[in-house]
Amino acid sequence: MRRSIATVSLSGVLADKLDAAAAAGFDGIEVFDNDLVASPLSPAEVAARCADLGLRVELFQPVRDVEGVAPSDFPAVVRRVARKLDVAAALGAPAVLLCSNVQPDAIDDPDLSAAQLATLGDLAAERGLVLAFEALAWGRHVHRVGQAWDIVQRAAHPAVTLAVDTFHMLSRGDGPEALEGVPGDRIGFLQVADAPLLDMDVLEWSRHHRCFPGQGTMDVSGVVDAVIRSGYDGPLSLEVFSDVVREAPAGETARDALRSLVFLEDELARLRPGGTPLAPAVPERADAAFLELPAGPATDDLLVRLGFTLAGWHRHKPVAWWRNGSADVLVNAAATEPALGIVASPVAQVAERAEALLWPSVAVSRTPGDSLLPGITSPAGVPVFVSAPAGEEDDWQRDFAAAPGRSPEGWVGLDHLGVAVPAGRLNEEVAFLRTLLGLEPAPLEEFIDPHGRIRSRAFRPAKGELRVVVNVAEVADAPRPTGVVQVAFGCTDLLAEVRRLRAAGVPLMAVPDNYYVDLEARLDLDAAFVATLREHGALYDRSAQGELLHAYTPVLPQGFCIELLERRGGYDGYGAANTHVRLAAQSPR
Amino acid sequence: MRRSIATVSLSGVLADKLDAAAAAGFDGIEVFDNDLVASPLSPAEVAARCADLGLRVELFQPVRDVEGVAPSDFPAVVRRVARKLDVAAALGAPAVLLCSNVQPDAIDDPDLSAAQLATLGDLAAERGLVLAFEALAWGRHVHRVGQAWDIVQRAAHPAVTLAVDTFHMLSRGDGPEALEGVPGDRIGFLQVADAPLLDMDVLEWSRHHRCFPGQGTMDVSGVVDAVIRSGYDGPLSLEVFSDVVREAPAGETARDALRSLVFLEDELARLRPGGTPLAPAVPERADAAFLELPAGPATDDLLVRLGFTLAGWHRHKPVAWWRNGSADVLVNAAATEPALGIVASPVAQVAERAEALLWPSVAVSRTPGDSLLPGITSPAGVPVFVSAPAGEEDDWQRDFAAAPGRSPEGWVGLDHLGVAVPAGRLNEEVAFLRTLLGLEPAPLEEFIDPHGRIRSRAFRPAKGELRVVVNVAEVADAPRPTGVVQVAFGCTDLLAEVRRLRAAGVPLMAVPDNYYVDLEARLDLDAAFVATLREHGALYDRSAQGELLHAYTPVLPQGFCIELLERRGGYDGYGAANTHVRLAAQSPR
Repeated sequence: MRRSIATVSLSGVLADKLDAAAAAGFDGIEVFDNDLVASPLSPAEVAARCADLGLRVELFQPVRDVEGVAPSDFPAVVRRVARKLDVAAALGAPAVLLCSNVQPDAIDDPDLSAAQLATLGDLAAERGLVLAFEALAWGRHVHRVGQAWDIVQRAAHPAVTLAVDTFHMLSRGDGPEALEGVPGDRIGFLQVADAPLLDMDVLEWSRHHRCFPGQGTMDVSGVVDAVIRSGYDGPLSLEVFSDVVREAPAGETARDALRSLVFLEDELARLRPGGTPLAPAVPERADAAFLELPAGPATDDLLVRLGFTLAGWHRHKPVAWWRNGSADVLVNAAATEPALGIVASPVAQVAERAEALLWPSVAVSRTPGDSLLPGITSPAGVPVFVSAPAGEEDDWQRDFAAAPGRSPEGWVGLDHLGVAVPAGRLNEEVAFLRTLLGLEPAPLEEFIDPHGRIRSRAFRPAKGELRVVVNVAEVADAPRPTGVVQVAFGCTDLLAEVRRLRAAGVPLMAVPDNYYVDLEARLDLDAAFVATLREHGALYDRSAQGELLHAYTPVLPQGFCIELLERRGGYDGYGAANTHVRLAAQSPR
Repeated sequence: MRRSIATVSLSGVLADKLDAAAAAGFDGIEVFDNDLVASPLSPAEVAARCADLGLRVELFQPVRDVEGVAPSDFPAVVRRVARKLDVAAALGAPAVLLCSNVQPDAIDDPDLSAAQLATLGDLAAERGLVLAFEALAWGRHVHRVGQAWDIVQRAAHPAVTLAVDTFHMLSRGDGPEALEGVPGDRIGFLQVADAPLLDMDVLEWSRHHRCFPGQGTMDVSGVVDAVIRSGYDGPLSLEVFSDVVREAPAGETARDALRSLVFLEDELARLRPGGTPLAPAVPERADAAFLELPAGPATDDLLVRLGFTLAGWHRHKPVAWWRNGSADVLVNAAATEPALGIVASPVAQVAERAEALLWPSVAVSRTPGDSLLPGITSPAGVPVFVSAPAGEEDDWQRDFAAAPGRSPEGWVGLDHLGVAVPAGRLNEEVAFLRTLLGLEPAPLEEFIDPHGRIRSRAFRPAKGELRVVVNVAEVADAPRPTGVVQVAFGCTDLLAEVRRLRAAGVPLMAVPDNYYVDLEARLDLDAAFVATLREHGALYDRSAQGELLHAYTPVLPQGFCIELLERRGGYDGYGAANTHVRLAAQSPR
């Protein structure tokens, strides 16, 4: 399928947008009228530049408020549309998007709208153009795709077709079923956008919060699949605008955008029997394997105090393997930032999927005799290394010579990683976790920080124990660090571990006494138990499924804090009720 | 009246918040439970610190989900509330705020809620406390103030009173009339917040977009007046939280907050016959007087090319007066940034109002023989000098020795000033223009910039010709300048002026040819007229009232662009339809 993007989806002036779309590998573009109006390039110059760049001009858009118009006002509409069709023709665009009327005086009469579109269809046909009529979600009377299709049918004009836009449909609750019976050759254009579910005015939602497929929560592939099954053979064209995209460099956005189309096409192939996916499937399960840290004496000292012991050495790289029970930490003299090791299999297929989805690789070459262990860098800058399960050929542990005398006693592994991203990279990090690894997001949570707020979203796979929590700090003081900001290990007896860590001189975050007064009031806990928690500086939470006891270090010189947590029963959260206390205690000033 | 602020309205940790509230001059505070929970200070220590700072602890807040509870769950509520009342007593707070139940399983039964509140009232009475029950705007069943008052009446308990919150009331459409018949001694607490009108989920609106009175558009003074008329004699307490306030330094917020209370109290006094306002009234009318620029050879050269001639010299300061028709520009060797001169009378009263409202003054001392010309700095950093009308004692022109041979021909004056503020200072700039000068805001407009978006709001007085447009640039590239970014002068023949400026070598902003193609299509203009506009690089707009022709320079080394505009008929806008073209043409990269 041809891959297209609307110029309104990219920042900069028109010439920059064309360059960015071409550089990312798009086949075509939609030219947004305002971008052209503000550009010193004439339509013919834009057409020539697109030809030079190998871009097709797929659409000129939008022309507004052209139907449901009082008959006395319609001659002015005809005149206006004719001028815009001339522009489209000069651009070499085969199609022009018309939006449903949003004016307060629009007339609610499908036959009138149809007759007016048919008249405009004549103008389009004269110029060899096709009109695609779109139901804006906030159109005055026409705001559902079924209404637009009804009007297109009544117009019964070969040059008047339906425009499908996944955002406008899905934001109004119209799924694939709303397109049933629409033949593909009557769909003139398909615009694709995703969005998070938000409870707000749909116009504001559309203007500020759209995102690329795979970054939001809409059933984009379901609608696109229905359009393609109908026989539509035009481009898949991304029309995404948001506060984030407006500020992001056009080149980065275009790369994200192309990746989202590859993902979407891959999804579509999987929906169809006999379809050919563009990439191997997401791994069936994903688990945490290890944390890798840059080397340094402070790090070795910290690990010793935390109870880690040296478990081995990499056979030919400067990497030490430390272990506490089944929690594994690698200390790599060649690393410059923390990295995450995961188990996801088959390893080669994960690497291939990452490559197909255009995620930057760290290293995918295999040294003879070593495990494959490909590395992929997340948008937040966290290298993720992919290992096979223990005992298989690509198990990372096979690369290490084990030290003697290993003890199985200790912690139960890496529970989760907290990763901070700048606000402008959040959508991309979400896409990385969802589209590459198949992790699913929990609802967005928001926490008050002493100097702003933290938006947070936890990710888990359908199967497996990998947990990643992505945070965005909207704070006013010195920019907060990004990348790995929290490393959480599981244990089976938090209180005993706290005593051990204290004895070993590990600094632990002070918890205010008021916290325990509140805890006792909120949860009606046994006074002796609260006294024990207080004595240990442990935080506590409870759900219908179980209990959580946890404790933190302050933010360490390594740039992250360490959390130790004991999950009792089926407790599956992260102690959100305690987050504001932690943020206040860890506040940088 | 006692002036209070909720700790949740200030950033930082609890100790910082207390310091900021005291430093700004508040009489008291509401202690937000989460602030206490996260603080290392015990309730008794907080009480002692407040005493040291001269702050009364007016309220402890909130305790949630305490009524409409299944009877089997109520004993746990009683236990929880008792613990929280102990905390309130230790803090020395006389009152505790209870919010209406938001839980999905809340029971819709006013008698049950009343009986439960009465039980809790006994607990409060035992401790010498009063409960104030608030209808949260998003309460499950109780979300209107009338419902809360009904329940308080049914509870018929001296320690169970009504809490009034202007945001919760006004966001639900309840004005002063909703409090009719509520006696003041049954109102236990009054929380005050304003907000802009937004079409969004009320919980999100409340959490992210509240502001201080005078910064939003709600009828806060109407509700507060009704409460005071009822006989309420407790504090006016600001409970404002927003994304802006969370990131702003606590000291700045506290100062803004106190200023908003002074403004509110002044408004209240004016609503009451025989009331004593805290400040002189806003001036009856406001007009633009002059623009002041820092001295420099480039500025003199620019003024000459623009058609200004030297009109005089200040009698004893290094200030030159330049004039083009009735457009006046002062060039001040002692100035470091552009300033605005306005006519607003009586001058001394404007200065007194500024002082009463705590706006920082530039200079209010009168040199013998000079006009008063007090200066007040806007939050965006623009000094505003206030002059009397021409011919009066405090007319700024009296300080100048006029050069001979002045011509009345030329421009028609300063049409408007564009002032850019950082996002975090927008509310304060709005308050400055509204509360000091009585300017009223037009609706918020948003424009797409090549690298983000510009939010813009125009201000005008009820009477007079002063126009100020306040912009916030949400852009990703290098921070945009703040302060005066646009200076717009009026003229009577834009096209002639463009020809003159071109001949004088003034750089004018290039307007793309596509703009004229679009203009012709949009507005069905005469082709010859469009050709003339194109030839002159003039922008055009039309409204039901009249027409606008305008042209811009690029952004000049002085940090602003100059706009020249010709208003025809009653055209009263700013050419918003053309703004995206200007932003693209002026884009810094």
